[in-house]
Amino acid sequence: MKDRSHTVLASGLEGVIAAETRLSGVDGEVGELIIAGFPVEELAGRATFEEVVYLLWHDALPDPGQLAAFREELGTRRVLPEATLELLRVAAAEGVPAMDTLRMAAGTASLGVAGEPYAEALALVARLPTIVAAYSQLLVGEEPVAPDPELGHAANYLYMLTGEEPGAESVRALETYLNTVADHGMNASTFAARVIVATRSDVVSAIVGAIGALKGALHGGAPGPALDVVFEIREAGRAEPVLRKKLERGERLMGFGHRIYKVRDPRANMLAAAAERLYATDGDREFYGRALEVEKTALTLLAEHKPGRNLQTNVEFYTALLLHGLRLPAGLFTPTFAVARVAGWTAHCFEQQALDRLIRPQSVYVGPRDRRWVPLEER
Amino acid sequence: MKDRSHTVLASGLEGVIAAETRLSGVDGEVGELIIAGFPVEELAGRATFEEVVYLLWHDALPDPGQLAAFREELGTRRVLPEATLELLRVAAAEGVPAMDTLRMAAGTASLGVAGEPYAEALALVARLPTIVAAYSQLLVGEEPVAPDPELGHAANYLYMLTGEEPGAESVRALETYLNTVADHGMNASTFAARVIVATRSDVVSAIVGAIGALKGALHGGAPGPALDVVFEIREAGRAEPVLRKKLERGERLMGFGHRIYKVRDPRANMLAAAAERLYATDGDREFYGRALEVEKTALTLLAEHKPGRNLQTNVEFYTALLLHGLRLPAGLFTPTFAVARVAGWTAHCFEQQALDRLIRPQSVYVGPRDRRWVPLEER
Repeated sequence: MKDRSHTVLASGLEGVIAAETRLSGVDGEVGELIIAGFPVEELAGRATFEEVVYLLWHDALPDPGQLAAFREELGTRRVLPEATLELLRVAAAEGVPAMDTLRMAAGTASLGVAGEPYAEALALVARLPTIVAAYSQLLVGEEPVAPDPELGHAANYLYMLTGEEPGAESVRALETYLNTVADHGMNASTFAARVIVATRSDVVSAIVGAIGALKGALHGGAPGPALDVVFEIREAGRAEPVLRKKLERGERLMGFGHRIYKVRDPRANMLAAAAERLYATDGDREFYGRALEVEKTALTLLAEHKPGRNLQTNVEFYTALLLHGLRLPAGLFTPTFAVARVAGWTAHCFEQQALDRLIRPQSVYVGPRDRRWVPLEER
Repeated sequence: MKDRSHTVLASGLEGVIAAETRLSGVDGEVGELIIAGFPVEELAGRATFEEVVYLLWHDALPDPGQLAAFREELGTRRVLPEATLELLRVAAAEGVPAMDTLRMAAGTASLGVAGEPYAEALALVARLPTIVAAYSQLLVGEEPVAPDPELGHAANYLYMLTGEEPGAESVRALETYLNTVADHGMNASTFAARVIVATRSDVVSAIVGAIGALKGALHGGAPGPALDVVFEIREAGRAEPVLRKKLERGERLMGFGHRIYKVRDPRANMLAAAAERLYATDGDREFYGRALEVEKTALTLLAEHKPGRNLQTNVEFYTALLLHGLRLPAGLFTPTFAVARVAGWTAHCFEQQALDRLIRPQSVYVGPRDRRWVPLEER
């Protein structure tokens, strides 16, 4: 495709194509998500997270030797510098929200890392789970659980969160989640990362910017409330009156609808299946049943109240269901999203660095002109 | 202007208008810069930095009572939390570059600040100079100089950098610099800030992203080398052979030419005049003379070697000359740019928050499709 420089006001940049990418492709009309050549359905439930990171960085799945080396590269980089831990302690004492803390602590990856893009990316992918888990422990007054370099990335994350080695079903469920959301086209946080690294800045700066963007409620900050109504109804059979009242009051139902997908989000399918398997073996079956009741009722009522909109269960709903099933508190949902998406962010940094092109749109000045200076005493 | 959603590939977003703004307007064809309604020539040499920050935030100059209150709001917020200072000490011990440290330390503004946009913006504008000055002291093994709440913003910055109360000419020179570069349309760092805050994230996250973007060599990371050739020639009369050799070797002359301004950058005029005044009263006249010789010779040789390009002395050259005249080492030029530009960044955050619109372009997937899973042992 040829580059055409139009002068178009597009304040949300909707419809503006800011990059060509080999990392992921999203087709919201047909409900398709491709991750580095693989339909998400082909990849997410089978690969380890390390394989997906390797795939995004190298455009190919690793062979056994490459995977072993890559697992070790990541596994040995999980330990946080003392200064990062100290920052986590101060933040915990103040009760700083987890995403702000993650942003602050991720920024300290500039300590002890040489400034080489690959080394920075490795450190970030390896450290983010340690930061999130350590902070969640510190927030409840516990000492952080040291990472275990022998465990895989996802297993070690669950281990650090709980202090117990997780079962295979839990690890598989978490890996399916991490893989499913590892990259998703040019979302706002990925775009922020590319804008930053495109000035020839460093990968740490880009990822810190991305974490900041992900935090916002219009982006990654939404999975928490998706299950609120499941908690709210407390017992089976109450979904309909509660949801009906919400819709009549004009409230938006969290967990349904997505800006891009006009049909069912393919990630929702992946996560729904993973949640079903997880709750079948090791979960709160009663809670799971209530969640399905809420979903079914919400879809029926939404079809009734907003005909023609075709609102579907979105990825936030199943993310919340799956991560809740893994015993993660809602406050860790968005940080865990970052633990996954850092795979895509770092890969986009590499892609943007190879392109080496500044991203700099224009603005139009719409303010006054020719104001004249008035000395302070005359104002 | 109406919003039109075209699907246009614009990988650097050149020619794409990403926002309407009342904060500043840049017309590179005629060499015009408007800051909140004022031609830069009308404002930058007269206002204090506090007045320019107030103007950008409130779209009007403060009256005496408003200015006094605003000076106090900023002046009392300069002190860094202990955790921020501790991070600076660790970074200094490792010799982390100043912009990485500034990004890390600015991120800790989430400590002790309530999460309200105005409070965050105040803390950031107030603290950035303290961070930069403290770090420059720690890097040379000195203890930071505590800020003086009685001094104005610019005077206090110079005081913290040197431990001595600066003369009026130096303060005026610094304020003219800070005001001149306080905002400049939709540059890459400002755009990064807007992308981040547009997700409904916080102002600290946005400014941290902006600092990361500013660090890059294609953005703010360039003012250091602009004076290298002035140092290199060492004595008067040697500019021509040195510059000629550089041009013949095909080297780019730092300090000349700008992506946007086709005529002389109006900021260059402001800073050239400020530098002239500064060096006349309190500067290294011999160095200043050499710099002017380099400039004059470079412009002559560039007109000869690159006819029709109309390359002009750019803002980096005069920034370096002015900040060198204020005794700032080259390593502090880009951090001092951040000390100025945080005025614009924070104002753009407020403007974007009022608009409340996600900035999310698209990407085109150009990678392979329909890859099939191959088990590890078969790879």
